[in-house]
Amino acid sequence: AAYAATKYKAEMAKAEIDTVNFMAAPITDIKKLSQNPNDMKTKMELLIMKMQAEVCHALEAEEDEGTTFHVDRWERPEGGGGITCVIQDGRTFEKAGVNISVVQGHLPPAAVQQMRARGKILQEGPLPFFAAGISSVIHPRNPMVPTVHFNYRYFEVKNADGSVQWWFGGGTDLTPYYLDEDDSKYFHLTLKEACDKHDKTYYPKFKAWCDDYFHVKHRGERRGIGGIFFDDLDTPSQEKTFNFVRTCAESVIPSYIPLVQKHKDDPYGYSERQWQLLRRGRYVEFNLIYDRGTKFGLYTPGARYESILMSLPLTAKWEYMHMPSPHSKEWKLLEVLKNPRDWLGTGNATK
Amino acid sequence: AAYAATKYKAEMAKAEIDTVNFMAAPITDIKKLSQNPNDMKTKMELLIMKMQAEVCHALEAEEDEGTTFHVDRWERPEGGGGITCVIQDGRTFEKAGVNISVVQGHLPPAAVQQMRARGKILQEGPLPFFAAGISSVIHPRNPMVPTVHFNYRYFEVKNADGSVQWWFGGGTDLTPYYLDEDDSKYFHLTLKEACDKHDKTYYPKFKAWCDDYFHVKHRGERRGIGGIFFDDLDTPSQEKTFNFVRTCAESVIPSYIPLVQKHKDDPYGYSERQWQLLRRGRYVEFNLIYDRGTKFGLYTPGARYESILMSLPLTAKWEYMHMPSPHSKEWKLLEVLKNPRDWLGTGNATK
Repeated sequence: AAYAATKYKAEMAKAEIDTVNFMAAPITDIKKLSQNPNDMKTKMELLIMKMQAEVCHALEAEEDEGTTFHVDRWERPEGGGGITCVIQDGRTFEKAGVNISVVQGHLPPAAVQQMRARGKILQEGPLPFFAAGISSVIHPRNPMVPTVHFNYRYFEVKNADGSVQWWFGGGTDLTPYYLDEDDSKYFHLTLKEACDKHDKTYYPKFKAWCDDYFHVKHRGERRGIGGIFFDDLDTPSQEKTFNFVRTCAESVIPSYIPLVQKHKDDPYGYSERQWQLLRRGRYVEFNLIYDRGTKFGLYTPGARYESILMSLPLTAKWEYMHMPSPHSKEWKLLEVLKNPRDWLGTGNATK
Repeated sequence: AAYAATKYKAEMAKAEIDTVNFMAAPITDIKKLSQNPNDMKTKMELLIMKMQAEVCHALEAEEDEGTTFHVDRWERPEGGGGITCVIQDGRTFEKAGVNISVVQGHLPPAAVQQMRARGKILQEGPLPFFAAGISSVIHPRNPMVPTVHFNYRYFEVKNADGSVQWWFGGGTDLTPYYLDEDDSKYFHLTLKEACDKHDKTYYPKFKAWCDDYFHVKHRGERRGIGGIFFDDLDTPSQEKTFNFVRTCAESVIPSYIPLVQKHKDDPYGYSERQWQLLRRGRYVEFNLIYDRGTKFGLYTPGARYESILMSLPLTAKWEYMHMPSPHSKEWKLLEVLKNPRDWLGTGNATK
């Protein structure tokens, strides 16, 4: 009897998913997740749940005691849902959002058009899809601490013949208000090391892609000093691509938290705050005019726009014809935004 | 001899254009304007120059002495240019921009696509165009004073066979932070009276069009309480349409300045200011995500983006999941933004 009981418990343990540290219960029913442990949909959902919790806890550790993430678990009438975690008006973070979503349904025509425009071959008609992703923007209060953004996602589209197309996308990128060359190199190096574990060609390629993507075209400026960005990644295999995405996801905390710790108590004044607010205006311009994820989200009927727009800063400014004095610290940042640098000497910084 | 001299002077006077009150010299050479007084291009340029000056002077009259418009006259390498007038950080106006532009060149593909999407039949190939317009957004400091926007424009496109398509577009609309029903009715009535002088069907039609156009779709909210909006107007004749546009333009000052005078010294506190900043965030969302003029502008290579983005407020806020208390003054505004009202009882408020 003792043996049997032990065996039973061992089986339960194997089937159980440890949700204790998650910010909320997973979107997909635990039983379904337990029954399909090797399905990539399960693996991705569990990865983003785990990552959300780790990032939220790492950020809370930089805040005053009592400042914790507000957690909203929401469902989507068409299927799936998400968990949105937000700190607003904290001492360290003016606005920090970490969102996961696990959704399924039929691709809206605007999304199909967008995917085709970047070369996907998709059949006609309403295509069933599944998407699971984590997306986060952290806007600190101190202008000496950069804003970070990361997003990792997995996509499946089912064709009428039953075949499934899948791919991963994502990236991590940094938007400083004042340039610290050591920080920039450290940030890029952490991402490069994550990439190098999987493919030595990834970092230079995805670094250039990032500079190309986060481009405020009308101003001829990049949003920040970049990082890595990739999309439609479906080689060499589903398992290997997932492992790469996991390594990237795991590199977010080590790439960013040390910068928060280093600068969160730096002194600053009115003029640094004003410059930060102006740069946040540029952040808004990029996100609302160019960002594909934001557009895809907002054009989807019934989208949870509060979770999409969580990326916007608490406060932003627009001054007509603002131009920093030549050779000022602000001017030096602009130089780098206009001419992305090859931080690690890995080669030509174009996509 | 005396007779001859007098005659000569009279002829000069007829050909002269009075530019004394303009904010800067017209974009088109004065000589060319003088030689083509009956060309609609001339008439429109002179109308928007006059209107820009009148609006700027009317706004300066509401400011502290010494607060005057900063004037930038700029040229466009591809042809034409503009005059951008801005007050920033004034006591009455936190940011006020009044821009005119007179440009010619070839339509960028994105613009052709946009025009075709709304039903214009345009030939293939790079089409020569001319556009002259005035565009303005006035963001006052006091949250009890509404923001106003107006834009009036004339467009010509030349087909390969030499035929010219022309049309007018424009409108005036109000974005209050707190609803004052008397103000709303007064504003709409002033616009209705302008419309009624030309065609009794215009106001109800253009009022509904305005509600339809200034729609922050993802939120299911209108940007403000509306006004009038029209586009592609090319009937009953060029002369009559121009006269209608002139009457609309002339109604801007009487529709808005009394509201500034009534409320600019109203008391307000921190919470009213915060609400104003949040609503300005919505204004930014509309302008960057949906506004056709902004998109057309920013997608045009070499566009003067500072003049386009002059419409953005000096400061804006985004709070996650902000929702005013039921039946508060803020909540009452939202009700009207969600369900546009038929302010003058002129009929069904849909386009």
